[in-house]
Amino acid sequence: MEKAEIGLIGLGTMGSNLALNIAEHGHRIAVFNRTRARTDAFVENSGALRDMVVPCYSLEELAAAIRPPRPIIIMVLAGKPVDEQIEALRGVLSDNDIVIDAGNANFRDTMRRFSELSGSGLTFIGMGVSGGEEGARHGPSIMVGGTEDSWKRVEKVLTAISAKFKEEPCAAWLGTDGAGHFVKTIHNGIEYADMQMIAEIYGILRDGLGMGPKEIATVFSNWNKGRLNSYLIEITAKVLAADDPKTGKPVVDIILDRAGQKGTGKWSVIEAQQLGIPATAIEAAVAARVLSSIKDERQAAEKAYGNIGVTRISGDKDGLLKDLELALFAGKIAAYAQGFAVMSGASKEFNWNLPMPTIAKIWRAGCIIRSQMLDTMAEAFSGGASTNLLMAPAFISLMQEAHPSLRRVVARASEAGAPVPALSSALAYFDSYRQGRGTSNLIQAQRDFFGAHGFERIGEQGAFHGPWGSGAAG
Amino acid sequence: MEKAEIGLIGLGTMGSNLALNIAEHGHRIAVFNRTRARTDAFVENSGALRDMVVPCYSLEELAAAIRPPRPIIIMVLAGKPVDEQIEALRGVLSDNDIVIDAGNANFRDTMRRFSELSGSGLTFIGMGVSGGEEGARHGPSIMVGGTEDSWKRVEKVLTAISAKFKEEPCAAWLGTDGAGHFVKTIHNGIEYADMQMIAEIYGILRDGLGMGPKEIATVFSNWNKGRLNSYLIEITAKVLAADDPKTGKPVVDIILDRAGQKGTGKWSVIEAQQLGIPATAIEAAVAARVLSSIKDERQAAEKAYGNIGVTRISGDKDGLLKDLELALFAGKIAAYAQGFAVMSGASKEFNWNLPMPTIAKIWRAGCIIRSQMLDTMAEAFSGGASTNLLMAPAFISLMQEAHPSLRRVVARASEAGAPVPALSSALAYFDSYRQGRGTSNLIQAQRDFFGAHGFERIGEQGAFHGPWGSGAAG
Repeated sequence: MEKAEIGLIGLGTMGSNLALNIAEHGHRIAVFNRTRARTDAFVENSGALRDMVVPCYSLEELAAAIRPPRPIIIMVLAGKPVDEQIEALRGVLSDNDIVIDAGNANFRDTMRRFSELSGSGLTFIGMGVSGGEEGARHGPSIMVGGTEDSWKRVEKVLTAISAKFKEEPCAAWLGTDGAGHFVKTIHNGIEYADMQMIAEIYGILRDGLGMGPKEIATVFSNWNKGRLNSYLIEITAKVLAADDPKTGKPVVDIILDRAGQKGTGKWSVIEAQQLGIPATAIEAAVAARVLSSIKDERQAAEKAYGNIGVTRISGDKDGLLKDLELALFAGKIAAYAQGFAVMSGASKEFNWNLPMPTIAKIWRAGCIIRSQMLDTMAEAFSGGASTNLLMAPAFISLMQEAHPSLRRVVARASEAGAPVPALSSALAYFDSYRQGRGTSNLIQAQRDFFGAHGFERIGEQGAFHGPWGSGAAG
Repeated sequence: MEKAEIGLIGLGTMGSNLALNIAEHGHRIAVFNRTRARTDAFVENSGALRDMVVPCYSLEELAAAIRPPRPIIIMVLAGKPVDEQIEALRGVLSDNDIVIDAGNANFRDTMRRFSELSGSGLTFIGMGVSGGEEGARHGPSIMVGGTEDSWKRVEKVLTAISAKFKEEPCAAWLGTDGAGHFVKTIHNGIEYADMQMIAEIYGILRDGLGMGPKEIATVFSNWNKGRLNSYLIEITAKVLAADDPKTGKPVVDIILDRAGQKGTGKWSVIEAQQLGIPATAIEAAVAARVLSSIKDERQAAEKAYGNIGVTRISGDKDGLLKDLELALFAGKIAAYAQGFAVMSGASKEFNWNLPMPTIAKIWRAGCIIRSQMLDTMAEAFSGGASTNLLMAPAFISLMQEAHPSLRRVVARASEAGAPVPALSSALAYFDSYRQGRGTSNLIQAQRDFFGAHGFERIGEQGAFHGPWGSGAAG
């Protein structure tokens, strides 16, 4: 029997779909799952792709089924299971084989694993995969971290199975060791911010304008034809339009407002803090999910505060809708600017030399945050934008057009009582960023007053103290 | 010669002042500094307290000068120097001696050191000290972590040298190992938020109302007589009123708007994230300092955006000033609520059983964030407030009165272009917290659509999926 080109361990939904995707692109694949029944079920459901799949029932069998040097994808639960899997594989693999972790690993674990395997003869790749189940099956966005040499050996199959944006594959090598998983983490952080901003706009439409789900669905559906065109806006329109078969009510109205979170949002914020780079829109989104999870406490607080609620927002409805569209657009730009700034910081910190134009390009299709705007970003970065997305000429124009709407929306929502944590963080970021003379001169004065920290004088070198002298702190 | 009761290593400004404070309260103290000259200078400047000070020029001499069992305070640079100092002390100390780290340690280091020394015969205390130089000299707020037994052995001297709030000492044992340094970290995180909110209000007065430093000083000075009465408001008025001797200009106008940050703000945010508790106002403050530090980039952005500036805020000035006062008050409440919530979370996570009423009490004097409001908080916590400060009856009333002002200020500032990252985060936190039905039902619908994460239905147990079915994510 012909040997397989590649192997895959872990036939959960993502793993199965990735395996079928690989098989469909003409690459014979050997698969293994800890529970035999799952392997059998996978084979049974592989349909026309049956001939391209080699079911294996032990790691030895798996290794024997693949032509060396073997690339093997691991798609198991992030954390300890990955370490255990790698350890088990070391017993059956040979020099030059490549172990590819395609799960949602913390990039620091990926760096550790990369370093642990270096010199062992095996090569390690940390690969971020975005696109959900359907992406895995029909074309995800793939972010690869590892040696360039190891990338070249798997490039063909990974670009084949990836999503395409106008023929261009959404798979790329981004740097060594943890680069791929780090970029995936920030992708998810941005996704948090993106979804939270959409939810805030939904809240304003629902509570501030008193619109029903169907009507709001139409608004998002219209926006999806314009500058906001993106997968998340598209599915927002779809979920808002959907009815619950059981009750006949709009589905969103029967869903509990308690959101879960996985590690990537939190990791994004922690790494941004470690790097000393603001990621306030992402942090606001993570905080919003946490607050959503304390439903009982919120209900008690609502009662305690006499149900302040959200007051109706009046005025020209068409003008308001236009403002909301532009506000969401401006908010997104600021959130993405933060995400890319965090990646720039990490790139320096970890010597990855992350290719920003490539990252924007491979996010244009396949992944959850894919959008028309990412194409504009890819162009901006290709054109040399480096400091901050807010400084790219294309985005300066877009923000100049959109920021007044963001202001009005944050103002109206704040007055009405509709929470806009991510949108207001985005505005504050923009306003702080574009302010040549800020207000931290006062903070420096305070710090010098109570702690003798010293301050800089405008136009002079060195540290100075104020005339309050020692003893002032009283 | 009579033996000393206590020892101190590290005669920097904070260490020297703490030593003088101890001596002044009648406790003979043996002191040591790595550089002999600093010890000599300290002795020379000890004035009337000379007799209470025993200068030592080696660790052996220091150990010999103190009556066993010896309490020894270390006041050296946080990090590796502390570990080195402890290691060196192990060679000269005996069983039952107590090593007290009074620096700004990361509480995780304190926990490690506590554990490393346990069983060694030595006891370790991690002690947070707030109040700047003057606090150290005349009465700081002291937050102690360690065994209760070790606390009892140093309680007398620590309460003696601490600040007093109406006779009550602002020093307390808060829990085991890292409890003291953790509480100090959150104290500093809150301090960041507090200072940032003051800076935001200053920015509105300066740029939105066009007021000069002297006029703004008068506003803060008046506020200091009311509900905002606090050390930070007091010194804000003072620094705004101060002139630069060199130029004759108001000092704040010659200070560069580039603020430094130490580790504690960042640590607060990272630990809040690890615990899954929102600390958005603190994070906004840390982000503001980071943005302040990229002055060149901000100046370039200002130019690129055609100097949008801050537009003048018109309307009834007295009404606006009243709104600003109440907005700052409301913002502070939300920020403190976050800080205390983070401490509650940590208390559970690390089994500290942190006494919230005591923490509020020892912050009423001596420390940088001391204020009248902390007395109200101490009462609220003593009265049983536990879930969240926003749920304490006294604070419900205060917020009900103040939140409309916070809304108006965030709205006016957002429209005018004056950055209000911390104030708007505080408002968003309050509005999210008091909203019984939020908007994360939409987020759950989206997540189920693209990732089949499942959602909860209102009033039903279990995980459900929407009618979009698999394959919808396209």
